[in-house]
Amino acid sequence: MNFGTVAILGPGLIGGSLALALAERGLAERLMIYARSPRALDAIRTAGVDAELTGNPSEAVRDADVVVLCVPIEAMAGLVHEIRDALKPTALVTDVGSVKGSVDRDLAPLLDDRALWIGSHPMAGSEQAGFAAARADLFEGASVIITPTQHTQSEAKRRAEQFWQSIGGTVVTLTPEKHDLHVAQISHLPHLLAAALVNQAFDEARELAGGGFRDTTRVASGSPELWTEILLANSKAVALQLDRIMSNLSAVESVLKGEDKAAAKSILFEMLKRAQHSRSKMTESNPLFKKR
Amino acid sequence: MNFGTVAILGPGLIGGSLALALAERGLAERLMIYARSPRALDAIRTAGVDAELTGNPSEAVRDADVVVLCVPIEAMAGLVHEIRDALKPTALVTDVGSVKGSVDRDLAPLLDDRALWIGSHPMAGSEQAGFAAARADLFEGASVIITPTQHTQSEAKRRAEQFWQSIGGTVVTLTPEKHDLHVAQISHLPHLLAAALVNQAFDEARELAGGGFRDTTRVASGSPELWTEILLANSKAVALQLDRIMSNLSAVESVLKGEDKAAAKSILFEMLKRAQHSRSKMTESNPLFKKR
Repeated sequence: MNFGTVAILGPGLIGGSLALALAERGLAERLMIYARSPRALDAIRTAGVDAELTGNPSEAVRDADVVVLCVPIEAMAGLVHEIRDALKPTALVTDVGSVKGSVDRDLAPLLDDRALWIGSHPMAGSEQAGFAAARADLFEGASVIITPTQHTQSEAKRRAEQFWQSIGGTVVTLTPEKHDLHVAQISHLPHLLAAALVNQAFDEARELAGGGFRDTTRVASGSPELWTEILLANSKAVALQLDRIMSNLSAVESVLKGEDKAAAKSILFEMLKRAQHSRSKMTESNPLFKKR
Repeated sequence: MNFGTVAILGPGLIGGSLALALAERGLAERLMIYARSPRALDAIRTAGVDAELTGNPSEAVRDADVVVLCVPIEAMAGLVHEIRDALKPTALVTDVGSVKGSVDRDLAPLLDDRALWIGSHPMAGSEQAGFAAARADLFEGASVIITPTQHTQSEAKRRAEQFWQSIGGTVVTLTPEKHDLHVAQISHLPHLLAAALVNQAFDEARELAGGGFRDTTRVASGSPELWTEILLANSKAVALQLDRIMSNLSAVESVLKGEDKAAAKSILFEMLKRAQHSRSKMTESNPLFKKR
């Protein structure tokens, strides 16, 4: 399989890993990489990626059959304004943003009649950022959510599926709204909890924490700029999930404070048993849970 | 260094790792292992650990210079009742329980004048349980909290320090009460959050979760029996820390729901920046954060 000319705009962790994966698997006839900063381009040149590098996004997309927006969410609309006149009408344009409702609302009207647009979100990443952390195997075994709407052309969906599958992803289709709710649950809420835990436990944990605390809070090392942007772009869904977990935790607190120790024992046991059971099911069904 | 005859009562993950560490480093002249179940003893025999195995706890401790209680918290007082008449008065008796206030209150009176007692808690473990998961290097780089009180003899403290250091631990001294507060913060609260997250996010996470969710919730795979016991034995401190994190999360929720997006951005950024900074300091100062 070959996707023709592929343009990656923003070669950070995700964009960089995408470039490495496409190059390693020989999936692009030509690979174009745009980065705003000359220093980022230098890093890719030094790494010896077989791609054409440019600081001009329109030049990157001019002949592209596939364009992947890998810049921060806040920068996407501006970038699309810059490139839209240079796009081929048959080009597939997608992104890798962690929030889909707002991205789709911003970009779909800009790309309408200019190219084939569909949002994507590869569920792969790391607390590290930048091209230095990029890996050709980042998407292997990862879920990639694509978010067609009623305006999405079926060809865009088909080609996006092929694209992500070809680098090892498992494609899941959700509406942008469902995506945002689900991802608030499995990514944005855990991030907030990890950050709150680190802030609360810092003094004790610095000296005493073991491997449990280390793993539970790993994501809190992620970029504060990136995560502030994500949480705000998905604030409604995050607030909802935060509300749900707080009422569950509040019930646990009542149980812990209560007088009836036998009832507390049975309620806590049920909660922990259910969690253990669910997590073992995840380990069975999700390939990433086996990989470390 | 050699600790003479060492008796390990309860060769699960921690007790088993202790036995392996002592054997590997040649730290015990004789190693006695007591397990209640014949099947557990068989597993150790099969693994070829150089130790004397017995199903009789009094026999295990009769000549022991060091006795380490590695049974569940709930079983400790019963076990100490069984062994106290067989102990040498010069024996050091310690434990590995995850809660120290209640353990010390239960055991100190039983061991007074019978042996040298001090509580211990190695901050090492795994979501796995049992001798099958034991590793000789489990304590390397781990903090081990010892919890002397005003009744603790200085010799008990000195020997416990030596013992844990000799297998690679870094000893930290806290009162049982401080221990329980700190550990509620860095271990018991994270466990509850992980379990609540898994229960809430199971349907979405099963298909979609990436490495972040996997690591954030790893501890939720821990034994529900063990953790129910721990949370109940430390319920007061856990409720306190739960209360603190809920008021912090509630503040975040208000920010997410508020109208003032600029204020929200700055508050979230400060929270995430502080967490990222704190976590990088932990990675610098805590050897376990470098080890995976």
